[in-house]
Amino acid sequence: MSFGDSVPDYLHDCLATLTIDLSSIIHNYQHCLQLTGGKECAAMVKADAYGMGIAHVAPALFHKANCRTFFVASLAEAVKLRQILPEAIIYVLNGVFSGQVVYFIKNNLRPVLNDLTQAALWQAISAENRPACAIHFDTGINRLGLSPMDTTQFINDVSLRKELDISLIMSHLACADDPDNPMNARQLADFEAITQNFPDIPASLANSGGILLGPDYHFDLVRPGLLIFGGNPSKGAMPKNIKVPFQILGKILQIRTIGTGQSVGYGATWTAKQPRHIATINIGYADGYPQMFNNCGWVYIKGTKLPVVGRVSMDMIGVDITDANPQEIGPECDVELLGPHITLEMASEVSTLSQYEILTGVRERYRRIYI
Amino acid sequence: MSFGDSVPDYLHDCLATLTIDLSSIIHNYQHCLQLTGGKECAAMVKADAYGMGIAHVAPALFHKANCRTFFVASLAEAVKLRQILPEAIIYVLNGVFSGQVVYFIKNNLRPVLNDLTQAALWQAISAENRPACAIHFDTGINRLGLSPMDTTQFINDVSLRKELDISLIMSHLACADDPDNPMNARQLADFEAITQNFPDIPASLANSGGILLGPDYHFDLVRPGLLIFGGNPSKGAMPKNIKVPFQILGKILQIRTIGTGQSVGYGATWTAKQPRHIATINIGYADGYPQMFNNCGWVYIKGTKLPVVGRVSMDMIGVDITDANPQEIGPECDVELLGPHITLEMASEVSTLSQYEILTGVRERYRRIYI
Repeated sequence: MSFGDSVPDYLHDCLATLTIDLSSIIHNYQHCLQLTGGKECAAMVKADAYGMGIAHVAPALFHKANCRTFFVASLAEAVKLRQILPEAIIYVLNGVFSGQVVYFIKNNLRPVLNDLTQAALWQAISAENRPACAIHFDTGINRLGLSPMDTTQFINDVSLRKELDISLIMSHLACADDPDNPMNARQLADFEAITQNFPDIPASLANSGGILLGPDYHFDLVRPGLLIFGGNPSKGAMPKNIKVPFQILGKILQIRTIGTGQSVGYGATWTAKQPRHIATINIGYADGYPQMFNNCGWVYIKGTKLPVVGRVSMDMIGVDITDANPQEIGPECDVELLGPHITLEMASEVSTLSQYEILTGVRERYRRIYI
Repeated sequence: MSFGDSVPDYLHDCLATLTIDLSSIIHNYQHCLQLTGGKECAAMVKADAYGMGIAHVAPALFHKANCRTFFVASLAEAVKLRQILPEAIIYVLNGVFSGQVVYFIKNNLRPVLNDLTQAALWQAISAENRPACAIHFDTGINRLGLSPMDTTQFINDVSLRKELDISLIMSHLACADDPDNPMNARQLADFEAITQNFPDIPASLANSGGILLGPDYHFDLVRPGLLIFGGNPSKGAMPKNIKVPFQILGKILQIRTIGTGQSVGYGATWTAKQPRHIATINIGYADGYPQMFNNCGWVYIKGTKLPVVGRVSMDMIGVDITDANPQEIGPECDVELLGPHITLEMASEVSTLSQYEILTGVRERYRRIYI
């Protein structure tokens, strides 16, 4: 439920807020450009721009950072993006199915063709109406893309290759987050061998993690997502110049003092070993603060990092504020749950959730502020 | 990102669907009425009616099942609900803060007063303008509600009690899911003692789990949420008459055959021990299918329960369809991820996530169909 349209602004004062700094997103995009020495840098904006809001993020990247190429997962996401950016190049990763062809044409969308059936479907369209397309060769993630056998067949089908207006050939890395994984070099070698057959067509292999694997992985176009949104896509160190572009602030609803032996939250999973001050915050798992933070999450209040105690409820969490001078803290105080002080990397480490899942988990109940 | 408003219906054909059967929700509500022998049965509709859509669920309960009392978490949720149901009784669990008073009055909303500050704030409003209110006494969950010390003070403040138009006194159980937990009886005893001081005011203790604890816990009004939406709020057996009112269907994007030793998905966490047929489905964690289902989730395709293999991606999962006669299964086939065959209880068991979190995790990218 998004409150943006139906509830007046003043009511937002009582809600938790998600602030998104578009200039930091642009900064991160430009840093990706630098990391690749000026190769074309597309933007992954599927899943509502990783939850950050495609209607704001995509225009910022297009108009302020000259990003021209965008990837989304589904046709519906692509149509939405086309309404926002009439001029952008838009690729649809899920491929194309027969009932969808007319909408690809009408909206000038480029399918990422994932198998020979889709290639034949696209070939059957009259050439003057047909947008360009990408061909996705699977090199080992076994999710979408032409299998090795289909790849050989496609490469040998010279007339099919000539008829399709192929604007990009691509593959996708399975283990780019782990620079030491031998699968990266295997996928790189396989993709390089494929590219030899398409000397005049731009090639793309690298997601955010692939960018950090180095120039061999960059080819002609890179496709960052998480890096643009301030996460670390690698088990290695975070690039120093990446900024955190978002901050989630909850509010304290109530503060209580509890005695030794008293518990907090459902299931009574946390018990006070001595008297403690507990703040109840207005964010829970229905806002995308998962129960994997039960008894292990951290929040940031007035300069102090403080622990989540007890289970995360649907709409609330408990925080032990005893170490933060409770005299300074009261109801309606702001509480950072994710942002510059509680980064995706930190949240991922304590929860064991991936940074991607935490980021895209951000939900609709927040008041959203774009700066 | 909701597609409902901006993308034409025909595009929905390519999306995963969430079908919600309002008649089953009504059936479950009526079953709660039966379980409590006709006590008043309110409905918990916070968090967008547990993700099922408050704009559809609340009117169905009000008009078709005569439900008159609704609980939401925040003022913003309450204002939204007031626009939908002008006549309903609406309680706001988060309490009331000074900047919000005017909107409570304007929208005829009842705050659940959680501490003496809120009680004083409400008392200060002129009586002819002031809606009724609930008083929340904390009996051990230590989240919201008057502490034991505040409770004593409130009980002794006869003028405050007289001035406020108290329509409900309530408390909340911490361990209602576990009938054997001694905390239930302790909270019951404490709440019963409190109710002695308010003989003329309706009392409420039971959430869904509390309803199943038996008549002692029912008092005058019960507040089911999960039971209405088809989940089991107890470690005990599910009540036989509760129906599953929702079904999430994804679609197969592509099917591939992989050889022994090949892996599926990010991190190559699943490897085929023999040749397998793998279907890639268009639902991922950005749709609320969490990574806790990595290599352990189940889906249902054409009558067969089939395992999720590899990590859940942002927009996709892999399913091993080898045991389902792949000749019958092809791209665009429907795949149940949650619903009558893959229940919340089953999904909770394999993922270790709570049924509540799985249910409220359902996201915006689905095409929603209400029947």
